[in-house]
Amino acid sequence: MKSGLSFLVAARQCEIAELEQLAQTGELVGVLSRLTHALQRERGLSNVVLASRGERFAHQRLRQADACLQVEQEVRGTFDQLDTDANGARNGARLFSRIAVVLHALDDLPDLRKRIAAQALTPQEATEAFSRLIAGLLSVVFEAADTATDPEISRALVAMFNFMQGKEFAGQERAFGAAVFASGHIDAPGQHQWHDLIESQEGCFRIFRDFANAAVLGAERSSQDPGVLADLEKLRRVGSALLGEVRLDPSLSQVWYDCCTHRIDAMKTVEDLLSTELRRLCGRKITDARAQLRDQQAVLATLTHAATLAAPGVPAPYGPHLERSILDMVQEQSRRLQAISSELDTVRASLNERKVVERAKGLLMAHRQLSEEDAYRTLRQMAMNQNRKLSEVAASVLAIEHALSNSAA
Amino acid sequence: MKSGLSFLVAARQCEIAELEQLAQTGELVGVLSRLTHALQRERGLSNVVLASRGERFAHQRLRQADACLQVEQEVRGTFDQLDTDANGARNGARLFSRIAVVLHALDDLPDLRKRIAAQALTPQEATEAFSRLIAGLLSVVFEAADTATDPEISRALVAMFNFMQGKEFAGQERAFGAAVFASGHIDAPGQHQWHDLIESQEGCFRIFRDFANAAVLGAERSSQDPGVLADLEKLRRVGSALLGEVRLDPSLSQVWYDCCTHRIDAMKTVEDLLSTELRRLCGRKITDARAQLRDQQAVLATLTHAATLAAPGVPAPYGPHLERSILDMVQEQSRRLQAISSELDTVRASLNERKVVERAKGLLMAHRQLSEEDAYRTLRQMAMNQNRKLSEVAASVLAIEHALSNSAA
Repeated sequence: MKSGLSFLVAARQCEIAELEQLAQTGELVGVLSRLTHALQRERGLSNVVLASRGERFAHQRLRQADACLQVEQEVRGTFDQLDTDANGARNGARLFSRIAVVLHALDDLPDLRKRIAAQALTPQEATEAFSRLIAGLLSVVFEAADTATDPEISRALVAMFNFMQGKEFAGQERAFGAAVFASGHIDAPGQHQWHDLIESQEGCFRIFRDFANAAVLGAERSSQDPGVLADLEKLRRVGSALLGEVRLDPSLSQVWYDCCTHRIDAMKTVEDLLSTELRRLCGRKITDARAQLRDQQAVLATLTHAATLAAPGVPAPYGPHLERSILDMVQEQSRRLQAISSELDTVRASLNERKVVERAKGLLMAHRQLSEEDAYRTLRQMAMNQNRKLSEVAASVLAIEHALSNSAA
Repeated sequence: MKSGLSFLVAARQCEIAELEQLAQTGELVGVLSRLTHALQRERGLSNVVLASRGERFAHQRLRQADACLQVEQEVRGTFDQLDTDANGARNGARLFSRIAVVLHALDDLPDLRKRIAAQALTPQEATEAFSRLIAGLLSVVFEAADTATDPEISRALVAMFNFMQGKEFAGQERAFGAAVFASGHIDAPGQHQWHDLIESQEGCFRIFRDFANAAVLGAERSSQDPGVLADLEKLRRVGSALLGEVRLDPSLSQVWYDCCTHRIDAMKTVEDLLSTELRRLCGRKITDARAQLRDQQAVLATLTHAATLAAPGVPAPYGPHLERSILDMVQEQSRRLQAISSELDTVRASLNERKVVERAKGLLMAHRQLSEEDAYRTLRQMAMNQNRKLSEVAASVLAIEHALSNSAA
């Protein structure tokens, strides 16, 4: 029969296996961050191309599409290296189905680019297609953050996810503003949407700051050029104040694009540091866990030796000293894992707002036969009308649908 | 390169593997429930033996110890059948270290029984030793509930855990009351402890009722004999009102024990039903998931066939009809898993109070060098003094210790 100590060693080995899988996830998150960045640039350029009827950025867009293709190959390669064997993969169900969504969207990219080249899409349609793909990439990072089994790594992933999501809102703002300046026109819902994009960015960066470590926070503080930020705020004011028939110099579109790009490129250096720190953290955790496993195995070897010296049939072959040290090890490990589990719950709570919104969206899609965009737009419209936060409206939707489905059952 | 569809199939296979592991956990929970029940009886009998200086129940105690030994062998056998390979085990770290604690406590049982036979322990010491072991068994069930990846199974496990925990408080009350009646004496802290045991039972049964299905709820309602419950309440009143020098007929100890045993044995029938329902649920879920996997694989086969007919190098070999059905499958699966994840968070939230108490206990043990019992007693004392719930006091302890350790760092 297996002893308590052999389960203790098995528990530690499981921890190491989980950490090794997390390290693989860390690599994946790094390459997803690069593809997201490249696609964000392509989205911004495509928008200007479409809004200017092909007059601006046509060449840059083609070059950026080539750059995206290269990183896409890397992402596909990393997906291929994932262990998809059902018995080896932890939390595989959610991660793999997110990846399936991403691969499907990547397969659609060549067609999207053809239609952009043929000016067969509005800027808004192109933005939505790119944004959907990027949302898929971010969902993979979200899954990684939500299922990580080590609190420190989970914190790093939550910081990474929120930074990437904040940067994505900044990218959406770049594309949105570029189209506004290029067309010289904005309406009231457009102004509201612009405001939302700014609010959402700030919300993400607040969570990022709660979870990032000191090195990353320092890098973030020094990454942004105050002059660029002042220009950005000025352009935001000018652009979002445009109403109705007032027309603006379309060349401001370029100024806006450059200013946003400056800011987003600076964010990219922070994201790279987050990615490096994440990989370093995984490496350190694995080293620590292996060292502790070696210590436990040394005790196990001593005990096995003591057992062979004892008379057969004697129930407790270890001396009181060893007996105590096993008990200590067993209790210490159990307490440590308990503390880890509570801490994980705390870190993951920060991801709940997003889950509530996603779930409300899913319910609206299923019960009201809406597309994903329409479900999201409906929620945003409700939030706007009721002057409440998106996550509050989503929580109400869930409560109401839940009550309705219970009374129907 | 792997396609989106192959990740979709991998995701489904992971789900099935998780369900199969849950089914194994369901078996484990069933046999743990039987060992818990047997040990609860032995604890109650041992208490009367010790409190009556060996005059009462000595023979029954020995018979019950034999019964425990048999179930213990079954539990050890089930532990042995668990797959402890680090790559196959899901959530292994926490589950296995809980099992390590349990095995260690089981190894100590023969010694505990010897000391009870020799009257070398107080009733309280014996109760604590048995309760510690039972708490370990319940922790294994708790881990299973907290890490289950299917919301319906998680609900069933939460119901099961809370019922077992409520029954355990009922068992502690039986042992506690038996000692009070046998000795004919109770003091003020003792009265408070008796009150706590009743409150804790009721809290657990409330959560059980929130999560159990209709069949189990019906069985629970009809399981209890109202006459027995009336006797119980009367004895509770008589026993907990005893103060100071008033002495009572020690034979009430037997009446109390029989009354509690009636009630607890009736609970056992509900627990058995919970266990049966859990196994049936796991079986049904696995069948469903396999059927859905077969459907997906049929689509995959059609697509592979379509791909072989297409010209080489053509990027999208599927017709628009199949293209759409893949997209639907991918999106449907992703939404379903998202909804599952939110639902799981909701179910697991019901386990949080216990986690907070466990974690506060762990902190007190680590920072103040207290034993587990002393840490728990300290928390209970604080709750009594401040007239607050145990979980509220535990949350304050966590907040204070967290603030202190942050200011020290």
